[in-house]
Amino acid sequence: MTDPTTRIGTPTSETTRFRMRGKDVLAEIVGHKSFTEAFYFIVSGREPTAGEARTLDACLIILMDHGLTPNALVARLVEDSMPGDIQVPVAAGLLMIGNKFVGTMAGAGQILHDCMGHDGDKRDWLAATVASYRDQKRFIPGFGHPYYKPEDPRAARLFEIARANGATGDYIALVEILGEEIDKAAGRHLTLNVTGALGAVLNEIGFPVEVMRSVAVIGRAAGLVAHIYEEKRNPVVPAVTNFINDIDYVDPE
Amino acid sequence: MTDPTTRIGTPTSETTRFRMRGKDVLAEIVGHKSFTEAFYFIVSGREPTAGEARTLDACLIILMDHGLTPNALVARLVEDSMPGDIQVPVAAGLLMIGNKFVGTMAGAGQILHDCMGHDGDKRDWLAATVASYRDQKRFIPGFGHPYYKPEDPRAARLFEIARANGATGDYIALVEILGEEIDKAAGRHLTLNVTGALGAVLNEIGFPVEVMRSVAVIGRAAGLVAHIYEEKRNPVVPAVTNFINDIDYVDPE
Amino acid sequence: MTDPTTRIGTPTSETTRFRMRGKDVLAEIVGHKSFTEAFYFIVSGREPTAGEARTLDACLIILMDHGLTPNALVARLVEDSMPGDIQVPVAAGLLMIGNKFVGTMAGAGQILHDCMGHDGDKRDWLAATVASYRDQKRFIPGFGHPYYKPEDPRAARLFEIARANGATGDYIALVEILGEEIDKAAGRHLTLNVTGALGAVLNEIGFPVEVMRSVAVIGRAAGLVAHIYEEKRNPVVPAVTNFINDIDYVDPE
Amino acid sequence: MTDPTTRIGTPTSETTRFRMRGKDVLAEIVGHKSFTEAFYFIVSGREPTAGEARTLDACLIILMDHGLTPNALVARLVEDSMPGDIQVPVAAGLLMIGNKFVGTMAGAGQILHDCMGHDGDKRDWLAATVASYRDQKRFIPGFGHPYYKPEDPRAARLFEIARANGATGDYIALVEILGEEIDKAAGRHLTLNVTGALGAVLNEIGFPVEVMRSVAVIGRAAGLVAHIYEEKRNPVVPAVTNFINDIDYVDPE
Repeated sequence: MTDPTTRIGTPTSETTRFRMRGKDVLAEIVGHKSFTEAFYFIVSGREPTAGEARTLDACLIILMDHGLTPNALVARLVEDSMPGDIQVPVAAGLLMIGNKFVGTMAGAGQILHDCMGHDGDKRDWLAATVASYRDQKRFIPGFGHPYYKPEDPRAARLFEIARANGATGDYIALVEILGEEIDKAAGRHLTLNVTGALGAVLNEIGFPVEVMRSVAVIGRAAGLVAHIYEEKRNPVVPAVTNFINDIDYVDPE
Repeated sequence: MTDPTTRIGTPTSETTRFRMRGKDVLAEIVGHKSFTEAFYFIVSGREPTAGEARTLDACLIILMDHGLTPNALVARLVEDSMPGDIQVPVAAGLLMIGNKFVGTMAGAGQILHDCMGHDGDKRDWLAATVASYRDQKRFIPGFGHPYYKPEDPRAARLFEIARANGATGDYIALVEILGEEIDKAAGRHLTLNVTGALGAVLNEIGFPVEVMRSVAVIGRAAGLVAHIYEEKRNPVVPAVTNFINDIDYVDPE
Repeated sequence: MTDPTTRIGTPTSETTRFRMRGKDVLAEIVGHKSFTEAFYFIVSGREPTAGEARTLDACLIILMDHGLTPNALVARLVEDSMPGDIQVPVAAGLLMIGNKFVGTMAGAGQILHDCMGHDGDKRDWLAATVASYRDQKRFIPGFGHPYYKPEDPRAARLFEIARANGATGDYIALVEILGEEIDKAAGRHLTLNVTGALGAVLNEIGFPVEVMRSVAVIGRAAGLVAHIYEEKRNPVVPAVTNFINDIDYVDPE
Repeated sequence: MTDPTTRIGTPTSETTRFRMRGKDVLAEIVGHKSFTEAFYFIVSGREPTAGEARTLDACLIILMDHGLTPNALVARLVEDSMPGDIQVPVAAGLLMIGNKFVGTMAGAGQILHDCMGHDGDKRDWLAATVASYRDQKRFIPGFGHPYYKPEDPRAARLFEIARANGATGDYIALVEILGEEIDKAAGRHLTLNVTGALGAVLNEIGFPVEVMRSVAVIGRAAGLVAHIYEEKRNPVVPAVTNFINDIDYVDPE
């Protein structure tokens, strides 16, 4: 085993240099880049174009909040127990960004990424993928929505922003073909939802597919902070606690 | 108890409006604001000025990474166990942003915020606070650093950025007075470190002190994603695992 | 720095011995000890007496469940997002065992432990501690309860079990004196609650005060598993989700 | 939707009864049952036989510790950041009990449970399952070990304890057939490891398969407490921190 190295940054013990991926943090990054540009850069090692950064901003914001969701509630409940340690309720809320809800963007992104790397006919590949998911009784990530039917306006808006900021549209085209194949196989229309759109748009800007779900994690973290702050001043937890306290305990039959 | 409400945003079940603090997300936020602007807005309910947003960008970036820190290592170790669920290693790493390390920014920010709200002489108030901490054998958060002595260049850079972006400097002045009082009481110089500087600068831009530590949480989350992604391709965990595996087990005496 | 060692156990890479604190796990621990005995032993390095183990069993069970508490709700909400990874909802629920709720046992235990180590008059020491907490406007951990007044029957039951299993009662006596001093200083009676009782009883059996809160953590973990399992078959999350979905979003004034 | 109920226990707001699954906690559970008996009872709603409880004790203990594993290291690193909140490092360590390491017991248990519920020939069903996993290039959970070859002595010991405590051996027989089919398909011998054995033994005692992994979670939680306590007094984190601090940062090529 060769000695491991890191290419991300220097430790604070090196007081004579403070570097991030080859750049001087104090002279070239901080004060010069936005959070979003630095996030893209530290993860991928490449500086995003202005258009890529604006598109990533949109991707981070679109999942920032959806009101009093279960994960906002978890953050608020944990905040109530650990009021001085905001990292704990934020972390607890983030644990919920899995395969079942917003985390699906990573699955959608992976399918599109694999498809783009495939040499043959892309529609055929996508149709075969749909068939394989159906055989295994699995949902294709990024499709279907309980409320937005037939279209999710957030998907259209993301595509519009990506295109306005220089995206080629190749991955957007793929996810639309994927949607067509899903509809054909299912015999009915499934909404291309915001997480499916994110899977396409994040591929458009070259965000690494292996860590794509982190865009949801960081975007939602910002929203959870807002909920935690509101909870400190205008709480919902007492009402929720009353509600669950009124759920009856029943002895065994 | 009156019915609770929220002022943050609408749920996805409301398909006819998608609002964040009174604004239409698709028409007014996404595609128009940066992540940092939206983060400030969703938390505080106020749109930051361009200068405040640039200053917040700097605050988010300055703590994004310090190389292979213990919390980067935790994220990498957890990633190795839960490779498909990036929210889990990110959350595990974030749990470490407490009072002992970068989370101290919140303590520093609180002292400065309380001091600014005090009507009398501010130097006297700060001197009394220093004395009270010393009586209780507690450290003043934001001062002292194992490597950066006598000055932490990150603090100076943050002040420079804040001033260049319109900060009045009132909180920066306060933290400098606090430093003078600390030195006087200790009989030696303690470094005003980056977290002390952040406590001042985040007050300068009006970021709510109750959730100030979230700036470290979100900034560092971005850095942890970079470590997790590097771990997938160029791991350090095997070497660390070998290292701990070589720590001897010893029977009781 | 001398090389670190561990006295807890051997790694799986050592296939010729599988030891826990000097004992052979397969020959001397598993099949011979209860979980509770092994927990006490691995933490403290000392085998508990039968009476100590029975008392620790009582301490672990008394906090196992209190119905649909906020932390049971957090575990259930997280379970709904990560249904195949029970470690995640359990961990999320455990994050709430802090200073504000059941984690107070550790604070109570610490006061009693410090008092016992004090050479002078113990009542005076406790009275001074009460005065110091009151000066700092802090609550003494382990006293007061919103529902159990004037007495918490769980405290009395724990004392009874400890005494029946050989406890000297020295720490129980101390916590009772502490309660008297609290009442005297407050001018009214505060309930000695279950966490205060646990602080005394866990000291009686010599459970290390530095990790005393872990008894609440492990006891409650078992209860959270029950809630997660019930949630899979007879969920409360849909009703809670409806409840929070009905909380109105309000535009800014 | 009918109103939800719970059958687990009463809330503290009900001061006139304190019940767990129909029993009075103070009169019938605490002081009468071991932690392990109460854990089995609260989860399943059924009181275990003495033999089932002894077998569950063995299952909880066998995974309690394996020395300085990555998850012990995570708990120790997090402890160093949050020294007063033991629930946080315990939770962080538990997050790692996923599908990749000890969490595999749940997958093994599920296969055996499904097989037992199958009416036809069990060996055929297991052979088909092995073939299906191989087709999908997935590992069968519970088989293979980097160090224990050809046999894992922990598996044999668990089977011995289960049989000595009244297990029928039906699930043990199944997992042995599963091992034979795996070897046949692979053309070489794979070790039936401790997690595969746990999947069988926990089915033998009727522990619910949906939450089987919780046995690893709770057993390991006890071990993590021991590591956290040792870290407070005899730390390994400084040496690990030095080790990672010496990993070189490398600029981009």
